[in-house]
Amino acid sequence: MAQKPSIPKGTRDFGQVEMARRNYIFDTIKGVFSLYGFQQIETPAMENIGTLMGKYGEEGDKLLFRIQNSGEKAALAPEKGLRYDLTVPFARYVVQHREEISFPFKRFQIQPVWRADRPQKGRYREFYQCDVDVIGSDSLVGELELIQIVEEVYRRLGINVCLHINNRKILAGIAEVIGAPDKIVDITVAIDKLDKIGVEAVNDELRERGLSDEAVAALQPILNQESGIKNQDKMAQLREFLKNSEIGLKGVEEMEEVFELVESQKSKDRSAQSQFSIELDLCLARGLNYYTGAIFEVKALDAQIGSITGGGRYDNLTGIFGLPNVSGVGISFGADRIYDVLTELNLFPESLQSTTQVLFATFGKDELRYALTWAKELRANGIAVEVYPEPTKMKKQMGYADDKKIPYVAIVGGDEMAQNKVMLKEMSTGEQQLVTPDELLSAIKN
Amino acid sequence: MAQKPSIPKGTRDFGQVEMARRNYIFDTIKGVFSLYGFQQIETPAMENIGTLMGKYGEEGDKLLFRIQNSGEKAALAPEKGLRYDLTVPFARYVVQHREEISFPFKRFQIQPVWRADRPQKGRYREFYQCDVDVIGSDSLVGELELIQIVEEVYRRLGINVCLHINNRKILAGIAEVIGAPDKIVDITVAIDKLDKIGVEAVNDELRERGLSDEAVAALQPILNQESGIKNQDKMAQLREFLKNSEIGLKGVEEMEEVFELVESQKSKDRSAQSQFSIELDLCLARGLNYYTGAIFEVKALDAQIGSITGGGRYDNLTGIFGLPNVSGVGISFGADRIYDVLTELNLFPESLQSTTQVLFATFGKDELRYALTWAKELRANGIAVEVYPEPTKMKKQMGYADDKKIPYVAIVGGDEMAQNKVMLKEMSTGEQQLVTPDELLSAIKN
Repeated sequence: MAQKPSIPKGTRDFGQVEMARRNYIFDTIKGVFSLYGFQQIETPAMENIGTLMGKYGEEGDKLLFRIQNSGEKAALAPEKGLRYDLTVPFARYVVQHREEISFPFKRFQIQPVWRADRPQKGRYREFYQCDVDVIGSDSLVGELELIQIVEEVYRRLGINVCLHINNRKILAGIAEVIGAPDKIVDITVAIDKLDKIGVEAVNDELRERGLSDEAVAALQPILNQESGIKNQDKMAQLREFLKNSEIGLKGVEEMEEVFELVESQKSKDRSAQSQFSIELDLCLARGLNYYTGAIFEVKALDAQIGSITGGGRYDNLTGIFGLPNVSGVGISFGADRIYDVLTELNLFPESLQSTTQVLFATFGKDELRYALTWAKELRANGIAVEVYPEPTKMKKQMGYADDKKIPYVAIVGGDEMAQNKVMLKEMSTGEQQLVTPDELLSAIKN
Repeated sequence: MAQKPSIPKGTRDFGQVEMARRNYIFDTIKGVFSLYGFQQIETPAMENIGTLMGKYGEEGDKLLFRIQNSGEKAALAPEKGLRYDLTVPFARYVVQHREEISFPFKRFQIQPVWRADRPQKGRYREFYQCDVDVIGSDSLVGELELIQIVEEVYRRLGINVCLHINNRKILAGIAEVIGAPDKIVDITVAIDKLDKIGVEAVNDELRERGLSDEAVAALQPILNQESGIKNQDKMAQLREFLKNSEIGLKGVEEMEEVFELVESQKSKDRSAQSQFSIELDLCLARGLNYYTGAIFEVKALDAQIGSITGGGRYDNLTGIFGLPNVSGVGISFGADRIYDVLTELNLFPESLQSTTQVLFATFGKDELRYALTWAKELRANGIAVEVYPEPTKMKKQMGYADDKKIPYVAIVGGDEMAQNKVMLKEMSTGEQQLVTPDELLSAIKN
């Protein structure tokens, strides 16, 4: 009885082309992480339900995939759920293994997460996260290195980006200065929409959220700050605006030090393969309750896709598991969105299309043996080779090379064997030439 | 309220050392797969429960982890379960995507699987499988390439192995010849124990399983075949034994062709970094109901750990999903066991211990900036570098380098800065020397 095969809603199969592209993204990111001494860890797909519950808000709790216990003692076993993100398992990991870890702990983690969200375009129930964090140090060198990592990853991928930066302390200072320190969440939720709905609508929303007319009026210099002006000028305006707020000035200082560090480490002779800029963005407020210092968000300049990387500094990641006051800073690369940007801008390298460089096509049993021997030699030289496994019609073997986008086909017939040569066909041009093993090797290597 | 953090029974965290080692294993295997044109795919962690149920026997059904549906429409949503192996999802994948696939389809897949087994030493509820298959061709070139892959993977890992090989058709022929064609399962289950319990106990078990005295007597030449003799001699004995069984002789022919192909492709000048041998093993019967031709199992010679790789040929993988008669051959590498063998034999390369090659240790804010600039230059040359993020006690910074097994520490004080040099300490010897940027670069590169 045949079943019609399908996969659960919101999940995906990745075929070889998608995998090659995804691996290209992950390998690029991992290569940069490694240059900065970040090391990979992995945690289990399942966590005890107590580890996950209450960490993502009420909405989040509902989106957890729970695992049914099976077997006789099912009722007694602790409940489990699938990983919802990499942050909570990481916090759990740090606390559980704190005796083995040398701090500052620089780790990265690339694993799938699962959410019982309603599937829709670009939103999946299973997707990869790619997180990098340094914890156990409040040095702003952490912020610097993450900014450098962002710049280098997108330089290597060829994507022009702008890194938006803000600071939670500045937002707290603003709320304090306008006389609404308890309204920081309302303020940030509203000004987060500034780009989309404009100043007047933001002001309306602020009033609806209970801000006084005086507070709204006091906020106007922030809302009307021009986006085109230099970060230094924005900083000067902010310093003036926040002059009576201790926390606000602390935020300004942190931000200035980060800018200054980045500036001091800027490459002078860097070839401009891609654009990279940093913009102070007071409307940036992602994950506010979680972040305590810098907040980052990266946008691709040439694609309308929203944030492709984001993160910030937090001071109490591990407190929920009993280890308070561990400061850290981290960012997360959005692999699916990066994939979409690279696709839209046609930036995947052509070399990803095929891993195999030569296909041997044969027309008889002896030729097949002969081809296998050549293939072995080429593989010993690091060349990826396939031998079509049975002598069959030329058309079929050529079709296979076409489908797999294999750039060369080495055709072996009786004549070629007699001369200890093969007929090498370059698939893109159709050109053919009779070559010796050495000639084949150098043709492929070029 | 602090929760004591832990993970579900039978699951594991992998720290940076374990991850580096696991990645070494997977990267080695992937590197070899790629040389033969195998390409990676991934399937979702969850499959519809109908895809999984009934595929692993009654016992297997009980070991499936099921996912609870959540949300309002939970009762209506199709049930889901976690992947139990990579074979069934692969079969589902091939049928679902058959229009996009060009056959023969050479794929590999490295992903975790989940089983609600009772956890015990060496048995986990979450573990990785690493499968490689070629399907859509019954050419024995498939068997040859998998054998070559096994040889090359273990050569690269430095593990001495013996590849045991058998053929389901030979087993069927033996059952036929001794007059018990319907008892093939009983016969193979019993002779599978020959090594452990000896000939007499096997004979007892065969009789208990309903074989006649005549059948047991007829089987003795097989049970008493010496293990020390050459494969060719075993084959000659088998050919005589099976002379009246058509299927048995077909198996002998397949086996001979595989041996002959392997022999014809044997490297003459291969440096013997590790031992590799192939042994015809009539007691090998793994997954019998599933395999239809060759059966493989690989054992490490210097470790008592059982099979570290296994597989075989199957003729109807995709039949359960409505695509009959697709022949394929595949093997699975046991990553956890390979890890244990490499650990036991101390075969992991030392270079895996640290990704970072230099740590910069500093004693003031200016020195920190200076170190950051040097670090940037080294990274631009592909060297993995860390800068200790705050100027603190020498002992703490050195301790960090020790913990992370970083081979070099570059110490930056005022004197060094004044000379545009750093004091480079080689951690293994304790030797120190004052070096320029160029000297540092060449010291690290050597």
